Amino acid sequence: MIIDKLIEKIKTTENPTVVGLDPRLSYVPKHIQQQCFDEFGKTPKAVAEAFFMFNKELIDATFDLIPAVKPQVAMYEMLGADGIDSYIRTIKYAKEKDLVIIGDVKRGDIASTAEAYSDGHIGRIDVEGNKFEIYHEDFITLNPYLGWDSIEPYMANCKAYEKGMFVLVKTSNPNSGQLQDLDVGGKTLYQHVGALTNEWGKDLMGKYGYSSVGAVVGATHPEQAKKLREIMPNTFFLVPGYGAQGGKAEDLAVCFDKDGLGAIVNSSRGIIAAHQKEQYKAKYSEMEFALAARHAVLNMKADLRRCI
Amino acid sequence: MIIDKLIEKIKTTENPTVVGLDPRLSYVPKHIQQQCFDEFGKTPKAVAEAFFMFNKELIDATFDLIPAVKPQVAMYEMLGADGIDSYIRTIKYAKEKDLVIIGDVKRGDIASTAEAYSDGHIGRIDVEGNKFEIYHEDFITLNPYLGWDSIEPYMANCKAYEKGMFVLVKTSNPNSGQLQDLDVGGKTLYQHVGALTNEWGKDLMGKYGYSSVGAVVGATHPEQAKKLREIMPNTFFLVPGYGAQGGKAEDLAVCFDKDGLGAIVNSSRGIIAAHQKEQYKAKYSEMEFALAARHAVLNMKADLRRCI
Repeated sequence: MIIDKLIEKIKTTENPTVVGLDPRLSYVPKHIQQQCFDEFGKTPKAVAEAFFMFNKELIDATFDLIPAVKPQVAMYEMLGADGIDSYIRTIKYAKEKDLVIIGDVKRGDIASTAEAYSDGHIGRIDVEGNKFEIYHEDFITLNPYLGWDSIEPYMANCKAYEKGMFVLVKTSNPNSGQLQDLDVGGKTLYQHVGALTNEWGKDLMGKYGYSSVGAVVGATHPEQAKKLREIMPNTFFLVPGYGAQGGKAEDLAVCFDKDGLGAIVNSSRGIIAAHQKEQYKAKYSEMEFALAARHAVLNMKADLRRCI
Repeated sequence: MIIDKLIEKIKTTENPTVVGLDPRLSYVPKHIQQQCFDEFGKTPKAVAEAFFMFNKELIDATFDLIPAVKPQVAMYEMLGADGIDSYIRTIKYAKEKDLVIIGDVKRGDIASTAEAYSDGHIGRIDVEGNKFEIYHEDFITLNPYLGWDSIEPYMANCKAYEKGMFVLVKTSNPNSGQLQDLDVGGKTLYQHVGALTNEWGKDLMGKYGYSSVGAVVGATHPEQAKKLREIMPNTFFLVPGYGAQGGKAEDLAVCFDKDGLGAIVNSSRGIIAAHQKEQYKAKYSEMEFALAARHAVLNMKADLRRCI
């Protein structure tokens, strides 16, 4: 079970931090940008290459401290085919370092369409009997608005290839309540989705009491996360919103169980663009962006461990 | 307004049919498969190339009869970077034939992530002042579970580049009711989302009374579609589920207004794999798959026009 590998890596690193590999050109140091522009011109292909080089150094500087990375596919997909190539190369490189990969794709579709996403992202593509692994993620994020029909097509690949998913339950954005907080018969919609998600995970239970069907639960709503922790005892939480989006470590404690497990907390900009923050600028040059990221990971680890 | 162009093309062709370009290798005639395998081996790249060749012939054989095509990105994305390249080439080719392109991507994310999707799919990518159009869709489909925060980032590009979106309101799958039919204070969740979608469209109203913010409303729920037509007077419907999923033309009439406008009906397999159906096999050889598709489009047009 992939959830067991994630938990074991969290135990080994003593760090429930996932680094969000959501690059933007403005985060990438000038020397990398220049090298890519020199080779490919000022093109999407150059940006895609710059993202890979940027990610590679970030992974090299942090892989021993963290259990997982979470590349956000939108940042790559926006660049077209070259971007998807960069996304896949990033994942392959992170896997060489034995990191768990959470592909933040938030797909949500049904039937043969969902099977296509499933086979491409976490399964195999069959071409006349030849099997190809395309994206190499360990987990992907999924949107539940279409119901079980949009989750079930992933289960077979999860079982066959030891993969998992995180279902969007309660997101971290200011407007997340517009649908998610609606009252559906005495509970909120997100609680309903949470209970369903916990149920959907029963078939993929690992040995530490958690399922490979996890949930995205935003860090910006501690009261809500506390309630979800109660109604989703077997569901591991992927928690966005720490740092840049205003979520504090104190607020996150409710996402964890008494053993300090049960959640992994994402930080993207706060780590990958640490070299641009006042706090790290004095100590690290732009060339040393990856060392700044390492420092930011250590600070985040200390911050989280203080509270859980 | 792109919705006006869609409506004008529906009027000109007298046909509210959108052809779903959702290729599968099993639909592609053997002579195209063989040509691609000979060139690229039995690889995802060969499949991606076969999809493009298949789509190109389908477009050539139907573009004068239809207003729009709807490629389903999952079928291409599953193949990795080569698949995305095939998706983009398909869209570019369809645009050369002046078809309206509905990219069925069902994305749903927030903030800078949603902006990345928006810029890539319906806007422009800026690389140091150089602007690139990447995906070239006219409309994309979006998932509303994250609320207005996941819709708003697309509005600026819709205005700047005459683009639009279709928001998932009520989907055609058997389990769509698991969340969408929940009672939220006297109405269903999908009705709530429908009312929001109609409201979100107010800023993108075209000259025929419809907005460039449309809605996906499944053909498998006529009673529900009828109610939605009432509470969403300014929202154009994209209707999946006709044919293969069990939706009948009679059931679709409720999606249209008194002028026979207000909706566009998708068919994928029923058209692009028509050559494999008993009905067309006797008349068309596998080599003539595109003629079978043309015949299927004409039959669907007649079937829809009989009822609206």
